[in-house]
Amino acid sequence: MKFLLVHGSWHDGDAFSAVADKLRAQSHDVYTPTIAGHGKGADKAVNHADCTASIVRYIRDNDLDDFVLLGHSYGGTIISKVVEQVADRVRRLVFWNAFVLNDGESLLDAVPPHYREMFTSLAKSSPDNTVSMPFPVWREAFVNDADLETARATYALLSPEPFQPFADKLDLKGFYEIVKGGRVPCSYINATEDAALPQGPDFGWHPRMSNRLGLFRLVQVSGSHELLFTAPDVLAEAIIRAGRD
Amino acid sequence: MKFLLVHGSWHDGDAFSAVADKLRAQSHDVYTPTIAGHGKGADKAVNHADCTASIVRYIRDNDLDDFVLLGHSYGGTIISKVVEQVADRVRRLVFWNAFVLNDGESLLDAVPPHYREMFTSLAKSSPDNTVSMPFPVWREAFVNDADLETARATYALLSPEPFQPFADKLDLKGFYEIVKGGRVPCSYINATEDAALPQGPDFGWHPRMSNRLGLFRLVQVSGSHELLFTAPDVLAEAIIRAGRD
Amino acid sequence: MKFLLVHGSWHDGDAFSAVADKLRAQSHDVYTPTIAGHGKGADKAVNHADCTASIVRYIRDNDLDDFVLLGHSYGGTIISKVVEQVADRVRRLVFWNAFVLNDGESLLDAVPPHYREMFTSLAKSSPDNTVSMPFPVWREAFVNDADLETARATYALLSPEPFQPFADKLDLKGFYEIVKGGRVPCSYINATEDAALPQGPDFGWHPRMSNRLGLFRLVQVSGSHELLFTAPDVLAEAIIRAGRD
Repeated sequence: MKFLLVHGSWHDGDAFSAVADKLRAQSHDVYTPTIAGHGKGADKAVNHADCTASIVRYIRDNDLDDFVLLGHSYGGTIISKVVEQVADRVRRLVFWNAFVLNDGESLLDAVPPHYREMFTSLAKSSPDNTVSMPFPVWREAFVNDADLETARATYALLSPEPFQPFADKLDLKGFYEIVKGGRVPCSYINATEDAALPQGPDFGWHPRMSNRLGLFRLVQVSGSHELLFTAPDVLAEAIIRAGRD
Repeated sequence: MKFLLVHGSWHDGDAFSAVADKLRAQSHDVYTPTIAGHGKGADKAVNHADCTASIVRYIRDNDLDDFVLLGHSYGGTIISKVVEQVADRVRRLVFWNAFVLNDGESLLDAVPPHYREMFTSLAKSSPDNTVSMPFPVWREAFVNDADLETARATYALLSPEPFQPFADKLDLKGFYEIVKGGRVPCSYINATEDAALPQGPDFGWHPRMSNRLGLFRLVQVSGSHELLFTAPDVLAEAIIRAGRD
Repeated sequence: MKFLLVHGSWHDGDAFSAVADKLRAQSHDVYTPTIAGHGKGADKAVNHADCTASIVRYIRDNDLDDFVLLGHSYGGTIISKVVEQVADRVRRLVFWNAFVLNDGESLLDAVPPHYREMFTSLAKSSPDNTVSMPFPVWREAFVNDADLETARATYALLSPEPFQPFADKLDLKGFYEIVKGGRVPCSYINATEDAALPQGPDFGWHPRMSNRLGLFRLVQVSGSHELLFTAPDVLAEAIIRAGRD
């Protein structure tokens, strides 16, 4: 199979390197671009459309076709907009603890109030309208399955997240036509210890986000929001089960 | 132990054959009747009372006593009515991702609107008031833990489901007297990746259905709605843990 | 690490002995006091403040410092009040399928009506205002992962629970200042087959109780409410992952 993996906030494409190695060891092709405005040293002055455009451009530049398009976390908002432009190239969409926004929503609309306030306030106090991940949030809510050493080592890989894409309201009519019409099938990978969003019906990933897809394939595994760091082998197997026909 | 396993919609008793083999290998007695109106070649003109009567008849004809009565999915509605007639013969009820309807409800009342519409419309367009399982629903929502080959092979075992039993409203006062009065103890087996009903408080199997039993024993295992095909050993162990005193 | 483990209702400190052995085998220090009014032969005429005071006294008498304070079930209400008096000595709070009450609530306020009625009625009909655990509730809802022999053997270890601490309304303003202010970090261990409280958003342990902590670390494992009896090795590993920095 061919996989295009789209990372989440604070990450860049290299965050997938251990997972990509596991997938390549099973003879799969793996692409891990970095979204515009993401990664260390990048110009963070981007909006959501810029982020989407950068992945669409990557797909066209590499002439990728017949691939599984996966989005992690914030990356779910990106693949939702990307597929609108390249639906014929996508074999399946895979959301991995990822946002599936309602039409017209922003990511900020979908997170609990305490995150909305924290992101907004951190962006305002930053020099470049970005949100830096506070270490205690990373350690307790994102890599809760890691030891402290791993928590620190992976924290060092993060970079500030542009705030504007969180605030942009997304027109998702085209996305929902594609997935509800069965034009591109969907899977949702849920890690059962992911508490990056508070679990439960009000703010959790699954089934709140996943059920918006209509018919979809559920794959569940143990672990935190950051399986790509804490258990790349588990994540790679989940991606294969989610991505196959 | 002695087990009577009642299958769900689109299935027949043979669907349990791998599970029955696993149970028999551990010296348990296993009975796997086919519900009236079910299976290939059967006369599909049955209502819910006919289905119930066929299992009660099977129990009496075989003079079964002191057995664990398990129902899968739609089979939960059958064992709820069967136990009203043979409570003294039943050692324990086991619901495996099965409907536990409220008194006066039909199965159609308990499923999400998109299933209600799909079942009704498929039945209307059928020659014999039956519902055929669409392959994409089977593959994504029922055997989400299988590979495509297994999905196809098991799909070939299905047969159209009579619609009338889905629509029949069930008087379950006797059932609730039996289970709430503690006359027959209950267990609920929940497979955590079962998305045949959308997971979550509104339409999910567990805890929506299970909590209706009052005091019950919860057994959870990984897997889809179709563990009897995809992991019969896991299901057999769950049945033993659910069925023991 | 140093652990102080506070047991739940019907139990005493010895209930943790298998878990303590596992933790000590990994060079951790473990303390397992019995709450006032608990255990066989104890004077059951205690209120919640007496229970709290007995654990605070134990900590001071043993001059315990820099320890992980864990509470199981009802023990969650105890550690919430204990930490108000000894916050500087506590490295982390760990709630294991434990009550995290809202400010001003009693335990009775947080359980489903059928438990409230059962506890109240059992206390009234007891000679000493205590609640004895009914065996069917223990077997089906508390040790659902055990065989009957283990269910019986562990039932024999229980003793009647004083009712008054269930009814006492707790001032938890100090507790919430400590945990929401980040003064003492928190973890929540959830056993996924714990049905001692009915699972689901209305009455379940997690995420209903856990989300009240604000930022916390989630650790999940398979098993019932009584992992300390049914899988002490699994619980010990969960305690280590929950308790580490």
